[in-house]
Amino acid sequence: MSARAGIVVTGTEVLTGRVADRNGPWLADRLLELGVELAHITICGDRPGDIESQLRFLAAEGVDLIITSGGLGPTADDLTVDTVARFCGREIVLDTELEARIADIIKPMLSRYAGPDAPDLETVLAANRKQAMVPAGATILDPVGTAPGVVVPGTPTVVVLPGPPRELQPMWHKAIKTTAVQEALAGRTHYQQQMVRMFGLPESGLADTLRQAQAAIDDFHRLEITTCLRRGELEIVTRYEPDAAAAYDQLLAVLRERHARAIFSEDGSRIDDLLADLLTGRQIATAESCTAGLLAGRLADPPGASRYLAGGVVSYSNEAKVELLGVDAGLIAEHGAVSEPVAEAMARGALSRFGADTAVAITGIAGPGGGTPEKPVGTVCFCVALADGPMVTRTTRLPGERADVRERSTTVAMHLLYRALSTG
Amino acid sequence: MSARAGIVVTGTEVLTGRVADRNGPWLADRLLELGVELAHITICGDRPGDIESQLRFLAAEGVDLIITSGGLGPTADDLTVDTVARFCGREIVLDTELEARIADIIKPMLSRYAGPDAPDLETVLAANRKQAMVPAGATILDPVGTAPGVVVPGTPTVVVLPGPPRELQPMWHKAIKTTAVQEALAGRTHYQQQMVRMFGLPESGLADTLRQAQAAIDDFHRLEITTCLRRGELEIVTRYEPDAAAAYDQLLAVLRERHARAIFSEDGSRIDDLLADLLTGRQIATAESCTAGLLAGRLADPPGASRYLAGGVVSYSNEAKVELLGVDAGLIAEHGAVSEPVAEAMARGALSRFGADTAVAITGIAGPGGGTPEKPVGTVCFCVALADGPMVTRTTRLPGERADVRERSTTVAMHLLYRALSTG
Repeated sequence: MSARAGIVVTGTEVLTGRVADRNGPWLADRLLELGVELAHITICGDRPGDIESQLRFLAAEGVDLIITSGGLGPTADDLTVDTVARFCGREIVLDTELEARIADIIKPMLSRYAGPDAPDLETVLAANRKQAMVPAGATILDPVGTAPGVVVPGTPTVVVLPGPPRELQPMWHKAIKTTAVQEALAGRTHYQQQMVRMFGLPESGLADTLRQAQAAIDDFHRLEITTCLRRGELEIVTRYEPDAAAAYDQLLAVLRERHARAIFSEDGSRIDDLLADLLTGRQIATAESCTAGLLAGRLADPPGASRYLAGGVVSYSNEAKVELLGVDAGLIAEHGAVSEPVAEAMARGALSRFGADTAVAITGIAGPGGGTPEKPVGTVCFCVALADGPMVTRTTRLPGERADVRERSTTVAMHLLYRALSTG
Repeated sequence: MSARAGIVVTGTEVLTGRVADRNGPWLADRLLELGVELAHITICGDRPGDIESQLRFLAAEGVDLIITSGGLGPTADDLTVDTVARFCGREIVLDTELEARIADIIKPMLSRYAGPDAPDLETVLAANRKQAMVPAGATILDPVGTAPGVVVPGTPTVVVLPGPPRELQPMWHKAIKTTAVQEALAGRTHYQQQMVRMFGLPESGLADTLRQAQAAIDDFHRLEITTCLRRGELEIVTRYEPDAAAAYDQLLAVLRERHARAIFSEDGSRIDDLLADLLTGRQIATAESCTAGLLAGRLADPPGASRYLAGGVVSYSNEAKVELLGVDAGLIAEHGAVSEPVAEAMARGALSRFGADTAVAITGIAGPGGGTPEKPVGTVCFCVALADGPMVTRTTRLPGERADVRERSTTVAMHLLYRALSTG
């Protein structure tokens, strides 16, 4: 049997969607590594009544561990510690030693701010005294920013962490070492998890394959399979206890047999990382119109991208295509800026201007304007050019709105490049 | 009194963080416009037991309306409709007319796929028959993709919507016109909401201001204020009933008095939109090193960006800075690629190569490698150059990891550009 956990994300800014929650997903991964089953994530605003309801809900669901994020700041709307203390039936007490540690952290930070907007030291220390109020008997997690966390033992055990991911993450690693958390998670099962990724297969096609696998594999019911289509990529995640590994191997064999061409990753590797490996020893340059730098920006995501990324041109205007990439103005006049000949000329221009051996060009109509009956919004032309290999040119019609078309275009470009490099 | 709502987001891929939820935030905005208070968002995997627990929790919290997203697909792990029917105590029945409509939608879509990965028509129709099973007495929301939604009247009323945002959004607009939803939301209060945005003020400084405002403004308690720091921008959102408008005006006066320089928006406008307006009639070009296209990509986000965005150069390598932007190689050797003189030369190069009147250059050390004691990771140099105005050059040290530094750099660049254009 697996230990179960729930996550309570607090903050009106998260509830109302002004800030995307990054803690829930990160904690979900960490729980999975620990073999703890995440049952629920709940999000509420800064109202103590709503936070308390969610804590009670998770406790009623029988989770062994609750993790909260957010609401530990110095402002009056930060009420998580108070609420958790009440929920756990514990008094809240001032920890004067902790208060002194927070003061030591804050003083040097204040020097960053100067001028009429700068707050005075006393004001700030008063605001932060509140952060040294902790539930009686809780284990304190020293602040990474200015907010300490706490672990409150009990059934369930509650881990209270701050909202900023760069504070929450190191504090989580300390939290799981506490006796209270170790006891809450005792006796957990370790699960295996595997992920296969595909590109270019519709979800219904996969559903058909899974039905056939279900009929063919004896222990299929021991595999917990979830599938997800996003940005044109299909992810198949399978979770199972170690002694069901043979059933997973059989599933993988079925997927390989039916979808060899669509599978690009059997170990969960992302296309971004696969490409970073394939690009080692090469020099790549981009030429982007509608995506306007998003592809170059994505290629630069991995640390050490300077090994292979020479650079790129965002040729948003036709003049930029001509001046910066050497595209023939007559070609644009004849075929239009969104056309395969122009994409090819852009890629050739990127190769030569950057002295690169690999180039990708994207030119398309992201919308909402600019579409025509022949080239509606979503029409995007791609060209992958290799100095030492073939040129691959494609035109696709991508669904969705401006932002979807632009983001999806970078994914299509990544896959065209991957196929060119892995087969070339 | 306000009607209250809860949102249930289903999907193991969302719970485990492999896919970011876009529906919760979007629905939160729509509920706000309707004057409906969003109390909770809950996220669970594809297990019917967990979905049902969350529905029961929200019903126990007394919400008038529950909206679910996801779990309407053709695969066996899509169980939301079944679960909602059980929760509402209704039978599930096949709607043959709906089944025929779904078939009409699917047939032409299949022609997109060909080759060995293509599923056959019968298989797909069988998988989608499941999508025509609906709770007895529910109002059907016609599919935008292939999955229909349903509105199940009751206390609470439940609106069941598909997961893909481009399907969910138009179907929501139909859902709110149904009698069931109108009745669930009858008698709601309309709230005002205002947002002020600032840049360059620490959160504790704002906390101090809010304490002073609390002491000075009689009806301060009628303002529900939430503050949020993200990407270096501080958002202050205030929600109040219309007859508390005078208290909000007083709050705004206090903010203006103390933080005039930091406030860049009093109506919630984002820096991106403010800049798009200011750039009208101009031609901007970018020169990016560590951000590698993210700034150009962000400038291209608004529809119609081609009015002002000429293009940009991603000069990731030193060679690209020299060849594409005409930066003097000796300048790089003398000062280093991350230096104010090189940022200025990059900006001048962008102005001249694109024939632009406005340019922004960014060169920095995003990490994790490349830092030195003098120029640690996070050191970023910016230059804003106007053909008709002054050149603004700045060096900042940004916190966080590689992705944080790169994203935050684009925000700093946007604000430097905004200040140069709005005061110039």
